[in-house]
Amino acid sequence: MNNLKKRIGIIGGGQLGKMMILDAKRLGFYVTTLDPASDCPSHSISDAMMIAAFDDADAIRALAEVSDVITYEFEHIHVDILKDLVAEGHAVYPTPSSLEIIQNKYTQKQALTVANLPVPDFKEVSSIDEIREIGELFGYPMMLKACLGGYDGKGNAVVKSSSQEDISSAFFALAGGKNPLMLERFVDFDKEISVLACRGLNGQVVVYPVGENEHKNSILDITLVPAQISPSCTTKAMELAEAVMDIFHGVGMFCIEMFVAKDETLYVNEVAPRPHNSGHYTIEGCLTSQFEQHIRAITGLPFGDVSLRCPTVMMNLLGDTESEGKTMVTGIEEAYKNPRVKVHLYGKAESKAHRKMGHLTVISETIEGALMEAQQAQACIKIFGGQS
Amino acid sequence: MNNLKKRIGIIGGGQLGKMMILDAKRLGFYVTTLDPASDCPSHSISDAMMIAAFDDADAIRALAEVSDVITYEFEHIHVDILKDLVAEGHAVYPTPSSLEIIQNKYTQKQALTVANLPVPDFKEVSSIDEIREIGELFGYPMMLKACLGGYDGKGNAVVKSSSQEDISSAFFALAGGKNPLMLERFVDFDKEISVLACRGLNGQVVVYPVGENEHKNSILDITLVPAQISPSCTTKAMELAEAVMDIFHGVGMFCIEMFVAKDETLYVNEVAPRPHNSGHYTIEGCLTSQFEQHIRAITGLPFGDVSLRCPTVMMNLLGDTESEGKTMVTGIEEAYKNPRVKVHLYGKAESKAHRKMGHLTVISETIEGALMEAQQAQACIKIFGGQS
Repeated sequence: MNNLKKRIGIIGGGQLGKMMILDAKRLGFYVTTLDPASDCPSHSISDAMMIAAFDDADAIRALAEVSDVITYEFEHIHVDILKDLVAEGHAVYPTPSSLEIIQNKYTQKQALTVANLPVPDFKEVSSIDEIREIGELFGYPMMLKACLGGYDGKGNAVVKSSSQEDISSAFFALAGGKNPLMLERFVDFDKEISVLACRGLNGQVVVYPVGENEHKNSILDITLVPAQISPSCTTKAMELAEAVMDIFHGVGMFCIEMFVAKDETLYVNEVAPRPHNSGHYTIEGCLTSQFEQHIRAITGLPFGDVSLRCPTVMMNLLGDTESEGKTMVTGIEEAYKNPRVKVHLYGKAESKAHRKMGHLTVISETIEGALMEAQQAQACIKIFGGQS
Repeated sequence: MNNLKKRIGIIGGGQLGKMMILDAKRLGFYVTTLDPASDCPSHSISDAMMIAAFDDADAIRALAEVSDVITYEFEHIHVDILKDLVAEGHAVYPTPSSLEIIQNKYTQKQALTVANLPVPDFKEVSSIDEIREIGELFGYPMMLKACLGGYDGKGNAVVKSSSQEDISSAFFALAGGKNPLMLERFVDFDKEISVLACRGLNGQVVVYPVGENEHKNSILDITLVPAQISPSCTTKAMELAEAVMDIFHGVGMFCIEMFVAKDETLYVNEVAPRPHNSGHYTIEGCLTSQFEQHIRAITGLPFGDVSLRCPTVMMNLLGDTESEGKTMVTGIEEAYKNPRVKVHLYGKAESKAHRKMGHLTVISETIEGALMEAQQAQACIKIFGGQS
């Protein structure tokens, strides 16, 4: 191709990388994946693999040498390596400068606060005494969070009360101050929603329909789209997402998770600078999936349509908690007896408890119908570890 | 996976194979492709490639050894090799016995006639004298067809009149009787339509919405869905497709091309035992693409929903006629200014005149709107051969 950045390098070969590639290949891009695991989900559909650690600066530089644009599928990357690449003239999207602010939950919230965007009250802390002190201000329960490296509830701990036991158990659950920590005032939210947005190289922003999330054991379980919130709250959420995109000057797909309080006040909970689990519904629910949109954004193509084609429900398929080992799947045939069920299996070699092994999507005339059908399908499928 | 045929072997790594794999990978299948070209469209997304000629019996046997089920993306295969595999206990779908009848246009039409299904009058011929003789019966123009190996108008020649010149030019255009030939009475059709249908291992048949085709230089140019025919004609066409599926006992996706005469009488023109160019619209137009349906059928999974999500138009993107060489593409950005345009590039290394290099799909509220937008997008994109 002439005018397109044709070669894409992706740091990370998990399910998000794999789904990016499925769309990139349709458009004829050449994709190289960097991942430490030679059997990662992306391995079989990447044009080339580089087997290397995520902090291997030489390998990431080598990836840049064979790519017209570099992107990544997770945010816990040594940002200095990416900054060096940009200084050397490589294209890296989302930009390392936006990634640097976002990957630290404290600086992320600071940036949002400076821009007057609504977030739960938050404060950096480094000791038990500080936690107690702020507890008087925020009240209990409060959320203690590791500023760096958390995901799927990992890196979060609830401080239930002002008792010495509750404070120190949360504190030591997050490595007892060895890593930067922050406290957040607990938001008594009515719903958690996700707004996916994408920003182009030219600064244009496109916002997807709002999804409503339900978590189980702090891991996303269900996304329902459209979110069951008022039209005015939907509009406010989409505007808030657009405002967030303008702060971080991100290029590519972002997910803005928000709390909706009972009075429909919105708070930004977390920003992810990448396609997101709560955006998987876009594959069947929209004409342009979040993965295709990301590829379009980082290669300078115009955006595709993001309107919702019909009510859509996404449910995660996690590894069984009772077993660990070579991935085994049962019940696909049963789930597929409903012709509107679509199952996505990520191709992870090993099943582990609570590991994201796949997801399914159901479209229907109504969100209630889609939810019921998705739950029936999810109940059919079992993913577990067998003997290898 | 436990109960699924997990490993799929595909003979042929062109665009149909590539699009099968894009859907197969979502479901976690392992795919091996056999193709003589190491840079064929499927090469970068197959789990494994076997570089071998399509008539290499040892290679096809080796493919079967590493696959739970074998399929193919084109019908011109030495059927004996596949029959041997079936005799040895391998699963090959569509079945070689159905392929054998279909790949010869004469036996294909015979089978349809025996079942009382409507086809244009036809007759085997092997000499200029026979052509003249049948011309008195069928009238002119008539279609002379090679019984084996044709595609995209190749293998067809119009016999314009009873003149010696017209008859012999058609006869020698098709190798002058060296290969089996047949004549067909010309059908003064109003429209050409395609009905895609899929048959499962259990005999269940599912029929897609009817599409209307327009050809240019005997190559498919446009498919419009739904076809602009009466509701009763639509129903008849779908019933006829189902009847065709029952004759061939095919497993997997089939395309039944039909002529619609001015009085809406239907004639089966050709049957293809595979996903078909005129079914590409299903990727965006239906929840279940023809490629996913084929994978489901040959692995014994239940069928996915085939209803039309909205009016959809597909247009082919062919290689420029003025150039040949390393594939170059321009105008994707321009085409993508319409957010409902979806471009599929097959990743063929070389562009040649009239070669199918990609296609685009547009969905819209009306078929007229989709057609106009598709034509605008097609006009933007140029695919040509550059200097390598």
